[in-house]
Formats: sequence, structure tokens, C-alpha cells
Amino acid sequence: MAKKLKVAVCGATGYTGFELVRLLLNHPHVEIAALTSQQSAGKKMSEVLRSVAGRCDLVLEKLDPAAIAKKAEFAFLALPHGEAAESAASFLEAGLKVCDLSADFRIHDRKVYEKAYEQHKAPQYLKEAVYGLPELHREKIKKARLVANPGCYPTATTLALAPLLKHKKISLDGLVADAKSGVSGAGRKADLAYSFAEVESGVKAYALFTHRHTPEIEQELSECAGASVRITFSPHLIPMNRGILSTVYARALDGATTEDLNTLYRRSYEAEPFVRVLPPGALPRTQDVAGSNYCDLAPVGAGDGRVICVSVIDNLVKGASGQAVQNMNLMMGFAETAGLEGLAVVP
Amino acid sequence: MAKKLKVAVCGATGYTGFELVRLLLNHPHVEIAALTSQQSAGKKMSEVLRSVAGRCDLVLEKLDPAAIAKKAEFAFLALPHGEAAESAASFLEAGLKVCDLSADFRIHDRKVYEKAYEQHKAPQYLKEAVYGLPELHREKIKKARLVANPGCYPTATTLALAPLLKHKKISLDGLVADAKSGVSGAGRKADLAYSFAEVESGVKAYALFTHRHTPEIEQELSECAGASVRITFSPHLIPMNRGILSTVYARALDGATTEDLNTLYRRSYEAEPFVRVLPPGALPRTQDVAGSNYCDLAPVGAGDGRVICVSVIDNLVKGASGQAVQNMNLMMGFAETAGLEGLAVVP
Amino acid sequence: MAKKLKVAVCGATGYTGFELVRLLLNHPHVEIAALTSQQSAGKKMSEVLRSVAGRCDLVLEKLDPAAIAKKAEFAFLALPHGEAAESAASFLEAGLKVCDLSADFRIHDRKVYEKAYEQHKAPQYLKEAVYGLPELHREKIKKARLVANPGCYPTATTLALAPLLKHKKISLDGLVADAKSGVSGAGRKADLAYSFAEVESGVKAYALFTHRHTPEIEQELSECAGASVRITFSPHLIPMNRGILSTVYARALDGATTEDLNTLYRRSYEAEPFVRVLPPGALPRTQDVAGSNYCDLAPVGAGDGRVICVSVIDNLVKGASGQAVQNMNLMMGFAETAGLEGLAVVP
Amino acid sequence: MAKKLKVAVCGATGYTGFELVRLLLNHPHVEIAALTSQQSAGKKMSEVLRSVAGRCDLVLEKLDPAAIAKKAEFAFLALPHGEAAESAASFLEAGLKVCDLSADFRIHDRKVYEKAYEQHKAPQYLKEAVYGLPELHREKIKKARLVANPGCYPTATTLALAPLLKHKKISLDGLVADAKSGVSGAGRKADLAYSFAEVESGVKAYALFTHRHTPEIEQELSECAGASVRITFSPHLIPMNRGILSTVYARALDGATTEDLNTLYRRSYEAEPFVRVLPPGALPRTQDVAGSNYCDLAPVGAGDGRVICVSVIDNLVKGASGQAVQNMNLMMGFAETAGLEGLAVVP
Repeated sequence: MAKKLKVAVCGATGYTGFELVRLLLNHPHVEIAALTSQQSAGKKMSEVLRSVAGRCDLVLEKLDPAAIAKKAEFAFLALPHGEAAESAASFLEAGLKVCDLSADFRIHDRKVYEKAYEQHKAPQYLKEAVYGLPELHREKIKKARLVANPGCYPTATTLALAPLLKHKKISLDGLVADAKSGVSGAGRKADLAYSFAEVESGVKAYALFTHRHTPEIEQELSECAGASVRITFSPHLIPMNRGILSTVYARALDGATTEDLNTLYRRSYEAEPFVRVLPPGALPRTQDVAGSNYCDLAPVGAGDGRVICVSVIDNLVKGASGQAVQNMNLMMGFAETAGLEGLAVVP
Repeated sequence: MAKKLKVAVCGATGYTGFELVRLLLNHPHVEIAALTSQQSAGKKMSEVLRSVAGRCDLVLEKLDPAAIAKKAEFAFLALPHGEAAESAASFLEAGLKVCDLSADFRIHDRKVYEKAYEQHKAPQYLKEAVYGLPELHREKIKKARLVANPGCYPTATTLALAPLLKHKKISLDGLVADAKSGVSGAGRKADLAYSFAEVESGVKAYALFTHRHTPEIEQELSECAGASVRITFSPHLIPMNRGILSTVYARALDGATTEDLNTLYRRSYEAEPFVRVLPPGALPRTQDVAGSNYCDLAPVGAGDGRVICVSVIDNLVKGASGQAVQNMNLMMGFAETAGLEGLAVVP
Repeated sequence: MAKKLKVAVCGATGYTGFELVRLLLNHPHVEIAALTSQQSAGKKMSEVLRSVAGRCDLVLEKLDPAAIAKKAEFAFLALPHGEAAESAASFLEAGLKVCDLSADFRIHDRKVYEKAYEQHKAPQYLKEAVYGLPELHREKIKKARLVANPGCYPTATTLALAPLLKHKKISLDGLVADAKSGVSGAGRKADLAYSFAEVESGVKAYALFTHRHTPEIEQELSECAGASVRITFSPHLIPMNRGILSTVYARALDGATTEDLNTLYRRSYEAEPFVRVLPPGALPRTQDVAGSNYCDLAPVGAGDGRVICVSVIDNLVKGASGQAVQNMNLMMGFAETAGLEGLAVVP
Repeated sequence: MAKKLKVAVCGATGYTGFELVRLLLNHPHVEIAALTSQQSAGKKMSEVLRSVAGRCDLVLEKLDPAAIAKKAEFAFLALPHGEAAESAASFLEAGLKVCDLSADFRIHDRKVYEKAYEQHKAPQYLKEAVYGLPELHREKIKKARLVANPGCYPTATTLALAPLLKHKKISLDGLVADAKSGVSGAGRKADLAYSFAEVESGVKAYALFTHRHTPEIEQELSECAGASVRITFSPHLIPMNRGILSTVYARALDGATTEDLNTLYRRSYEAEPFVRVLPPGALPRTQDVAGSNYCDLAPVGAGDGRVICVSVIDNLVKGASGQAVQNMNLMMGFAETAGLEGLAVVP
């Protein structure tokens, strides 16, 4: 057996950290060398995440890039933005490859980033960073030292629109993405707004016209279109843990039917291991991707110019940690699907 | 104490029937005189709906309009379409007033109804029937013998758009209503698609471009606008029992801000007992109306022409049985809010 | 119309406070005169609890017993233990009647209280306080100035066992109450353990052999039995907001059948407005009492000495605020059911 | 690579069938050769179970043992009882090994089976069948042609009590198992009682003193004890899809503490790959095993003779299909954990 890649998960006790650990423990070419946590340092991982008891004996440590660089070759950063940029710089300087799950290196334009987030902590790496959506940027990812793992909403929405934009099938005006997200997207934290009592059996919209993922989505859509694209992005909180369903509205330049669109999408994604286009007439459920790295798509055309594409992913897998593993696989030359064969747990 | 109105609930063992019984048992001016059920006739209501044990001793009977006409003055029809039209005709002929919760008399144009549903069973009453959305048609409802109680999606969506259309603030093109509904909207029935195992912790879209509520919505929006209006209506199934949240997208003819819109909506609905406009910055949750007859609205303007209005109701109350009681109150000259003072059960 | 009783709700922004406000806003003989909140003082109640918008314009104030005593005649205390005792003393001295929803005056024996909770802050009132379970102590409650409103688990469990103990039908040894509670019982707070992501779609036990409600349950059971009773009480957290189901295991001294037990329970509770005994063969669901003040009971006998009684309540209504209103009704000479006619919201 | 075992899943479109397919598609030593379904024969598996799209192209066929025997060497039976026994006989006669997930061969005593279920359809195989709980019967399973895969409740409950009974630590009287199950245990079917609207946000008990799993549990507990054991078994339906938590009450013959019990359980299960004993003070959640084949146990001793053991499993994995794969691994000489490395999907 070949020598395994030694990886570190920085920020292992948030939900994307949990999910990285879950996936990496069953990855054939990887060994987890270090797990970090600011709040739980000194505890065993299995004390925080009981589900890995018997399978992971590592003790959580404080994030010390120098110490970690001695035992790991690859770092996943599941850290708050800002902290991620700083750590990424340290790891890159120490010779590690990095997949950053924060927003820090997703937006190419520093000003746009700083307007949505804060002053950038490592702008010198912005140019080098590759946006880690393999379906759009696979070849660049393969050569990257630093991959910016996409946001969950941008992943679902960009995959829904890419074929239409690349093939110039739709107007660039009036795009709407009405997205429905599970609660795990809010992270692992004590917050009344995400308590069970406040979330169960109800739904709400939030951050209308103002969500930080909007510029990220617009960057990728614009790249697909070869022109500036704006989108109205409306996130909603759904009483479920995992999953994003993005209902994307566009206006076709012709009277595309569902059959037409289905053909276009199947061709566009036929070589993709993690994108599935449903047969005409079927609409996707988040349940069928939950726990897996798939994105299921269903484009629907009214025949009168109106087009909807429904896109579902697991926000913690294809929307975060699974895609990060996919990126690592590409960066390291592993099979792209290694460690990602798990299917949705249904029901 | 004044003599109480004797009412019949036809179709008492579906969820809208349950909700009528819940509300009517606490209505100050009403006495339930008869409850019908095809499948459970002969049982006590409290055997089917345990929650009313100790409060309702009525035995369910088969639907026999002649027999019911002898003991009731007012009939609520919570029946499948088609059956409702036939029963309505019988009750009207026997001198009762009728509030029909089915779709049979909602759509004025018989051809439109028959395209979406089936051959109409009592077209002679279509002209007389009043569409029972009090916020739009209160005066007509007061004088009506037959009220067609609106659908749940049309209620939420029409109330969201009426001020914009009446005041000609938006383009009539490109309207989108992305609606999220609780499972109780599917009715009380054995159906794998609505089993807990299939619905929990996930979300899906359904009936894109084809839902039967679309012509009903378009009829009312067109009446508000004084011109033909079309809308893209996309329903979604959410893992919750009660509630609809409709996120409605429009394009303002000016650069309306949230403050502008808030002022417009507050003026439009200031006299309405069951419509609440949230303060600017707040967005509604279905939880805050669940169990109550309120519709909570939040219009949001991007200032660049994009407008969203978020609307929430309880699909079984303002979206069905509560609105039916509101209509009965108007038809009978009771206080409009009688029996509808209940507040949402939070959390 | 008679003059309305002016009441204060101290601690109005927790879930029991919310529920008191919901119930009191529709109470025919009550006017809410003051609402207090330490954290939200200065805000309108309707900003914190959106569901009462349009129905309650009160501004939350800091808890100042002297100020409140000037405008209220009756105080509900939905405060943390310790604080409740101090406030109760102030209100009693100012001439108000008090219903305390905390644990402070539930346990007659100061030592037992102090072992489970902390040093008692107003022990001088322990003797006077009446345990507010109307089914056991109605006459005393009517005359009380200070009522200690029971805990949610003790209410469900005591009502389940009282007929068996009073009629000496069971062994006092080996009693077990395996209770399943909704999340709202944990209160309104930011706490990772009660976040949606941690609670959804799972179940856990907690506080085995150590829950603070145990001595309270044992006190009341012992009083029913006229002898010292111990019980093994095991609470579980269920992914639902409202409701407690307590499955109580006992050993009958004879071979009681379900029919025997049903007769006993029906007789025991026949005059009770809020206790319903299900017919033999039926078992209760929490859904059928959620939002209402009912306790539904089903005793089941194996015929070989084994007896189970299943008891359900809404933890925030009969298990807290509804029972508090019931106690106020008794203390003030109102009809016992006033303001408590609301039925469960099903589904 | 060694030749893969060709397996058939009979009854592939129920939830245990789904779960077998999910697990077997990632099993290193297995190839799925046939999938059967009475209702969906002719459809692709991926049309019924969308989550396996792109991973499973098999077409569902009617159950024809002769046809299947030509292409498979091993049969999993996820069939209704009765049908399972008949099919098992056919497959055994055709030379296949069989793991039967129904109840047909679990109960050794035909009379006990026939009292709980129906007339046995293949009693000639009762003697040969091995009860497939590896922790109790591993060596027999290894040599078996026909394994009766245990029920979900019996698995959780037997593993909770086995150490206490084997080491004669508890009284054989008065055992109680209060079990809480997810809804998937009811199977994949249209049934009003398991609809989302009826199950969400509530809890109920069912089948008190009468559940069919009781004799199965008692058989295994008696074997552990070397004496006849009876248990009171009370199942409850919880609003979650997956998971069983069984809270088991016993009376220790000594004053066992949690520490004592923890030591006993750790020793008892130290060689077991799928049983984890939590450290003293911790209590298990179903979430931490959902999707995995683990059983997590926490024994708790009050020190006064009272003992509780809390046991959690995923009812579809360790409680059904995962245990079936574990049994196949043993029967075929594969590594016991092959294909079962998946960890719980948390949150």
C-alpha cells in the first residue's frame, strides 16, 4: 500500500470540521495527522464528536501552524474568515498545500471581498488561489497549492446556471435564486436563533438582497457567461439539518422546453462524477443527496421562455467538506471520487 | 344571550374540517349542529379527533343535504371539488348560506376552472359566488349566500402583491411566487409521498409551471391590477405541519426602498384585523402565525427596482378554515374577528 | 362588564412567559398591567414575541416589585429559582397574590429544596405556599395567597399515579416514570445542547437518577399514598417543541385489567375539567393536548400485576402557564376554565 | 482482486431493502446480482431510490427464486414474514446461503412464533436457523446456511442486558425496556398513522404488553441468563426517521455503581467491533449511531440496587440491514467490518 497523505483539519469541532473527519477517516489514501480546536484543545476528538469513538484517538490541539507543518502535508482550514487567511499563509510558507473552506480566497477582487467581509489578511495569495468548483475549474485545481473551497449556496446555484450561461441560452437580467437551507449551515454554536424551539416546524427568509454569498455567486456566473451577471439571491432557513435546495429562475432566449434543457444539462455534465441530471418530469429532493457529495439538477422549461432549474446538494458535503476532499483528491492526483463513494442515507 | 347560529361542517374529518371544528367550538355565536364524514359516519367526532374529547359529543353522519338542512342554517363545505359544488347547490336551494372551502366556485371563468379541474357540477352558481378574500371583497362577502373560500397559496400570494398592483407600483411582467408549504396542506390521507419518513429533514419543489392554484392567483392579481397578470408560481414542500411562506419577486417601476414599501403596505392594510405589516428590517416566520388567522407581510425594496414581499400565513387558518370563519362572520353580521382571537402557539 | 383583574407577568420573555401572555391576552377577566424582562426591558413585547403584534402594546420593564405593585393585583413569576422567591416575598408584602412558576415554593421541606437547588431565599413563606395541582389541592388553592405552580414532569407523573396510590392499588416499591419531553421545557436560551442541529431527528436520556423534579414528584406521590414513596424518574429529550409523555410503571396488588383501571380513573377524575381518561384500548398522543390545558391519561393493566399509565400534557400549558392560569382562576374565584378553553392545534 | 460474491436483495424497495442496497454498493467483496420488488418490478432501482442514481443500473424483477438462484450465491430476504420463510426454503434448496431479515426464523419455538405471527411456512428450517446477533452467537453464525437477522428492538435491548444477565448481576424479575423508535421502523408504506402530519412534533406509546418483539427479546435474554426471563417492553414512536433508544430498567443484586457497571460492560464488549461502551457520566444519543452499525451503551447504577442501561442503535443498520451485512461477512469469511465502516452522519 502506498504511503498515506498526512492531513491536518484546522477547526475540527465545527460542523464542517466534523464532516471532514467523518469523510477522511474512511479515505483510502489519507491519514489524519492533526486536529485543531481553540475551545476543545486537550480533549479527544471522540469526546466532542461521539460518533467517531473507537475510530479516532487523536487529541485536539491549539492551532500552531509551525507544529502542524511538522506532521502534516496538507491542511484543511475550517476556520472563521480572517483566521483562515492568516493560517493559509503560514501553511503555504511552510510548504503545505491548503484547501480553505472559509470565504477568504473565494473572491478574486479584494475590494469586493473587503466590502462583504473585512480587511483581507493575506491578499498576497489572492491571485494564486483557485476557486475550488471542480466542474468549472478542474484543471487549475489540479495544479493549485491553495484552493478556495466554494460556499454552499454558490455551489448549488452556480451548478444550476452554468450550462445556461455557458451556452448563452438565457438573458443575463432578472436572475433569481430562491434558496432553502438546512440549519447546519449556520454552524455549531449556541445561538437562540438556531435553537430547536425557534426553528422547528417553521420557515423564514433572511438577509434579502444582502447575503455575503451574492458576490461569490455573481463572480462565478459572470465567468460562465463571459459578461457581468447579477442575481437576486434569497436564502431561507428550513427545519432540517442538511441540504440546500436552490430554485433558480431565468428567462430563456428561446422557448426552451424541459426536454431541450435536459439534453443540454446531460451533455454539460456527462463526465462529472458528482453531478446528476434527473430525467424530465422528476424533481430532486435534498434527502437523496444528504450525506453524499452529489449535486442533483432538474431544469424545467415552460416553453414560453420561462426556465427554472432546481438544484440540491448536502451543504456540508458537496457544499463544504465533501467538495474539499474532492479538491484535495485533484490537488494530490488521487482518484477524484476517493473517499466520496458514500451514498445518501435514505430515509 | 342571542340565539346561536346552527352550522354544519361537511367533511369534518379532513384537516380543514378538524380546524373548523376547533375554531367553531370556541366561537361565541355558533353552535355546531351537524358534522359529516363519508368514511367515519357513525363514530363520534372525538374518536377521530381526540383533541376535542370532552368538548364535542356529536356523532358523524353521512352527507345528506336534506337532513342537514333541517338542523343547520349555515354550511361549511370541506369536501373534494365536484362534491362540493353539488352539495352547495343542494344547500342553497334549501335556503342555507354556504362557505365552500373547495376550489369549485373560486374561478369565475368556467373554462379556466374546467381546464384546471373537471367539468363543473353547478355552473349556475358561478356568477353568484363571491371570492372570499375579505381584504379584497369584503362588501360583496357581506351580502353573499355563497362564498368561495380562497386557496392557501392564493391567499398568501395575493395579499403580498395587492398593494403593489392596486397602486401600479410594479411591472406586470416577470412576477414570481416561490412558496414554501407545510405538509398539512396535502390533506389527511395515507400517501407514501407525505409519510414522515419521506418528508422529514428535506425539501422538494413540485408542480412547477402546472399547479392548479395558478389561475386562481392570476384571477385575483388581474383584478387588483385592472389588467391581465401572469405569475410563475413554484410550490415547495417543507418538513413542517402548518404554514405557508410565499416569497414574491417583482420589479418596481421606481426605485422603491423598503421604507417606501412599508409605508404603502401599512396604509393599504391599516384597517385590516388580520393583516400585519412588519416594521422595516424584520422578516416574518410562519411560527408567529401558526394556529392564528393572521397574515404577516414584509415588503423589501433593493432601491434599484427589485422588490420582494415575504408573506406568511397558517395554511389551515387564514389559508382555509379561519378565513372561512371570517367569511361566515361577515355573511352573518357577526364581529369579523369573532372566534378568531387565538394567537399563534409559540414555540 | 366587571372590572378586570390587573396582572403582572414577571419574566415575560421566556417560554413560560410567552405562554402566559398568549393565554392572558384572551382571558375574559384579566388585563395585563405589566410585563418584565431583564434583558429586553425597553422593548415592546411584540418586538420580542412577534405573534402578539397588534394585540399587545406593552413595553417590557425591569422587575421592580414596588413599581409593579402599584399597577397590578396579581403576579405571575416566570423567573429563575431564587429570584422568584425574593420577588414573591416583595409582592406578598405589597399585598399581591402570587403564582410562582419556579421551583422555589414547591417543596415543603426546606432541606430537600436546598439539596436539589440552593439556599432558600424566602423560607418564611414555605409553610403558607400551596402546591398548585388543582386535582389534588383545589380547596387550599382557592384560599391561597401564594401558589407554587408544579413542574411539568411532576404534573404529568402525579396525575398518572394519584388514583392508584390514593386507592392503594399498587406496591409503593419499584415505581418508574420514563418521561419524554419536548425541547421547549429547556427554556428560551442560546445553548448548543438545544440547538436544532443537535436535537433534530434523535433522542437521548439525561439526568438519570439525579433530576431535580424527583423530590417534587415523590412529595406529591407520598401525600397521595399517605406513606413515603420513591420513584425512578428518567427524562428524555424528544425532537418536538411541546409535550410531555410520561410512561409510568407500577405493580398492582391485584391483577388489575385495563377495564378495571379505566373505571377507577374515570371515577377519580370525572369532575375534573382538564383531565381526560381515554377509553380502554386507546393510548394518548402529545399532539392531542399541545396548546391546550388538558392532561390525557390511559391506564393499562396486563392482568398479571403489571400496570402502565401513559400520561400526556403540554409542558408549557398544563405543565406550566396554563396550570398557572387555572390556579389564578381558583385563587380569584373565576370559573376554573376561564381563558383555558383553547383546544390543541392538530395537526 | 478476488471474485466478488453475487448477492440478491429480495424486497429491495422497502426501507431495509434500500439500506441493504446502500451498504452493498460500497461493500468491497460483493456484487449485487439481483434486486426484487413485487410492486416496482420492471423499473430501475434508481427510479425508486433516486439516491443510487449513477451507481446502480439494475432493473427490479419479480421474486422468482429459481431465476435468482442462477445468478446469486447469497440472498438477503427483506420480505414480509411468511413470504420470507417460503423464499428461504427455495433458496436453501437451491444451494444459496440466506440471511432473512423477517421474523420467520428468529423464534426457535414454533408455537411461540405462531402465537405472535401466523402458521409457520417452513418449520423444517427452524432448527437449523441461527439467531444472527453476532455478539451472542458469532461462532454459530459463521457456520450457518440460514441466519435469522434480529429485530431492531431485540438488538438494542438484548445488547443492553446481556452482560448483566450473563454475569448474574440482576434480578430476573421486573425488567422493563422502555424503547423509543424512529418512524422508518414502520416500513415504507402509505399509512395515515405514519404520515408526517400525524407524527411530527409529538410522541405516543403503542402495543403496550402486546408487541411481537417481546417473545424474541425474552428468548435471547433467557439464553443469556440460563433461566426464563420475562420483560415488560413498551415501544414509543418518536418524530425522527432513524434510531432506537432503549432505556432498560433492572434491579441489581448488589449496589452496583456506574463505575462498576462500566467496567463490566467494557470487559464484556471489548472485542466487539460494533459495540461501544460510553465513559461513565456520558449518555448516548441516537444521532451518534445514525447511518452506522454501532450500538452505543451506557449502564448507570444508582448504588442502591437500581440500574438503568441506555442503548442506542440505528434501527435500519445495526437493527436490520447493517447487522445483516455483518452476518453475511461472518457466514462468508469476510472481515466482519467489511462494508460497514461508515460513520454516523452528524449532525
